[in-house]
Amino acid sequence: MNQNNPTFDLTCDLLRLESVTPNDETCQDLLIARLAPLGFTCETLVSGPDDFRVTNLWAIRRGTAASAINPSAKTFVFAGHTDVVPTGPVNQWLSEPFTPTVKDDGHLYGRGAADMKTSIAAFVTSIESFLQQCPNPTHNIALLITSDEEGPAHDGTIKVVEMLKARGETLDYCIVGEPTSNEVFGDMMKNGRRGTMSGKLMVKGKQGHIAYPHRAKNPIHLFAPALTELASTVWDEGNAYFPPTSWQVSNIHGGTGASNIIPGELVVDFNFRFSTASTSSGLQERVCAILDQHGLKYDLSWVIGGQPFLTEAGDLSNAITHAVQNHTNQTPELSTTGGTSDGRFIATICPQVVEFGPVSKSIHQIDERVEIACMTPLSHIYRDVLLQLIA
Amino acid sequence: MNQNNPTFDLTCDLLRLESVTPNDETCQDLLIARLAPLGFTCETLVSGPDDFRVTNLWAIRRGTAASAINPSAKTFVFAGHTDVVPTGPVNQWLSEPFTPTVKDDGHLYGRGAADMKTSIAAFVTSIESFLQQCPNPTHNIALLITSDEEGPAHDGTIKVVEMLKARGETLDYCIVGEPTSNEVFGDMMKNGRRGTMSGKLMVKGKQGHIAYPHRAKNPIHLFAPALTELASTVWDEGNAYFPPTSWQVSNIHGGTGASNIIPGELVVDFNFRFSTASTSSGLQERVCAILDQHGLKYDLSWVIGGQPFLTEAGDLSNAITHAVQNHTNQTPELSTTGGTSDGRFIATICPQVVEFGPVSKSIHQIDERVEIACMTPLSHIYRDVLLQLIA
Ligand SMILES: [Zn+2]
Ligand SMILES: [Zn+2]
Repeated sequence: MNQNNPTFDLTCDLLRLESVTPNDETCQDLLIARLAPLGFTCETLVSGPDDFRVTNLWAIRRGTAASAINPSAKTFVFAGHTDVVPTGPVNQWLSEPFTPTVKDDGHLYGRGAADMKTSIAAFVTSIESFLQQCPNPTHNIALLITSDEEGPAHDGTIKVVEMLKARGETLDYCIVGEPTSNEVFGDMMKNGRRGTMSGKLMVKGKQGHIAYPHRAKNPIHLFAPALTELASTVWDEGNAYFPPTSWQVSNIHGGTGASNIIPGELVVDFNFRFSTASTSSGLQERVCAILDQHGLKYDLSWVIGGQPFLTEAGDLSNAITHAVQNHTNQTPELSTTGGTSDGRFIATICPQVVEFGPVSKSIHQIDERVEIACMTPLSHIYRDVLLQLIA
Repeated sequence: MNQNNPTFDLTCDLLRLESVTPNDETCQDLLIARLAPLGFTCETLVSGPDDFRVTNLWAIRRGTAASAINPSAKTFVFAGHTDVVPTGPVNQWLSEPFTPTVKDDGHLYGRGAADMKTSIAAFVTSIESFLQQCPNPTHNIALLITSDEEGPAHDGTIKVVEMLKARGETLDYCIVGEPTSNEVFGDMMKNGRRGTMSGKLMVKGKQGHIAYPHRAKNPIHLFAPALTELASTVWDEGNAYFPPTSWQVSNIHGGTGASNIIPGELVVDFNFRFSTASTSSGLQERVCAILDQHGLKYDLSWVIGGQPFLTEAGDLSNAITHAVQNHTNQTPELSTTGGTSDGRFIATICPQVVEFGPVSKSIHQIDERVEIACMTPLSHIYRDVLLQLIA
């Protein structure tokens, strides 16, 4: 049944490699073997400490415009990751997680099938197909692949982006191959993601015996009014693409365990999911203003997990919509829901970043799978976008 | 130096017995051996499970009024405990904790020296002395001794009190021998104690991913306004003998540890220290009313550690004041500070309960000690109170 389905074949080859974060396990070598003969210059950028070695690939094929005296070549990038999350309990899988297995339900099972080795395979086959139709495109085609998207993402896409910035390389269009389809293939693309920013707050009180509260300062009591205000603050109203920014406490811990001690400090972890209607620095200032206004003594450290990014409807999303309509019976919705993605890094050097890929339902779970019937359409959609934008 | 100091001698005998809660280690046998020849009827009441056997002594010597046709005998009780807290690291002690040791500073060292074997010894020697002066007193003298005061106190004084209630036995005066002196011997007695009541509150929310807060209910956020109100509530103004009731959170814990999960529940431990201006049931109702008013779903369980008790200035405290003034240069202050004591149980069947004993500074610590110079005055003070009240 899978004759003449090069996307299926390459997906299977990738699924056999146990590329749990941060290990690439030669996935990227398979890509290089296919891209180099097509005229791609392939650079491997290894990053991270000895015990967390990340493998990144930057591959670019220059178009005809790039060699002109006054180059005006645009660069189109496919971005993604070869790493997968751990399998979980292998004995709970219907089949071996690193043995790609076709089942009667028309799905190919394996860790990474949906997130996102099928998309990676479709990148390659779409480029092959595109170059057959258009052997000398005007513009540049590139791939940015990492093996640290599911992990801390400190040594992955961001490192390649930093390298490109240092070189003055600019990007014009980027499709990230994350599994963005919701219920059926083609029903959704992601044209942005909310930002995520966490704070660790330590409210300072003064420990003491509970029988002598006047000698102590209870940080739990001191924090209560500020918590009430933080929890009820409307940070913004969102905008056309984003829901309002939300603030949530994930963890709160205070107390020695003893029932007769007023603790000396309270530790609170909280998280913002924020839209482009707010900025990380603005939110930080507002939190501190509330804490200060309540007279609290505290330590507060911030981790920006990701800045929000947004690609408003335009060339790229229109091209994707058009291609999806041609190869499925769906019109993909523009959405910014869900967690963060590597798109946030690429968006800093690329004005249009859109994510599009298979159905996400099974990702990160036991029996991760992808519908085989979506593979060729996915490759064709990617190819058609290339044809529309950079032929 | 300790010739003719029977209080010192009996204290040393008691200190040699390693009566860590709940073990009496024959301390009470020493008392029985002294009291029985004086006409005391001694009952030993053993209580508690196999692995926590508590020994209680109820000893009573009936006065002449008790045998009259229309008995109007009053009963005066000395109450206390033979159990001591653990030694802590023995090698940090200046001397063996269960080897009573006199040092140059004029103190007798040993676990239980201040809390409260010296007082127990003084009970006995004061009775001996009293009966020498007044061989046929009108009224009853009793001792109520437990080996479970420093522990959970479930099988100690309360069991004896329950037995006395069942018998219809009433008490009139009770001195508890706790170390109540603050800076110098004789400076303070305790005429009551605040109540203590703890609550364990579980606020119910709905767990969910932090990126989708509208699908979850964050119990930390939900609880914040109620916490603010609880922490700022004035429960009462106290009264002439007590400071205002205080409410304090001792422990608060919510969160799975993960930074991206809104927890499903929040657990809060809190404690009241309450005066006789409030009641435990009234405080419970007010807490629930605040939680209900904020629309919270919760589980809440209560533990009443001790009801408050108060003996207003009267016969007993006046007699103690008078005796202290006669044997020291102090006038003891009436105080209700500090933790709870077994006095709370006795107060339910005895209208006047006052605690008086040595300086408390070293109790429960390494190198617990008692001033030797206070021993004879303490015995004389107890004796003089007997002479004033029940001769
Ligand atoms: Zn992914
Ligand atoms: Zn004690």
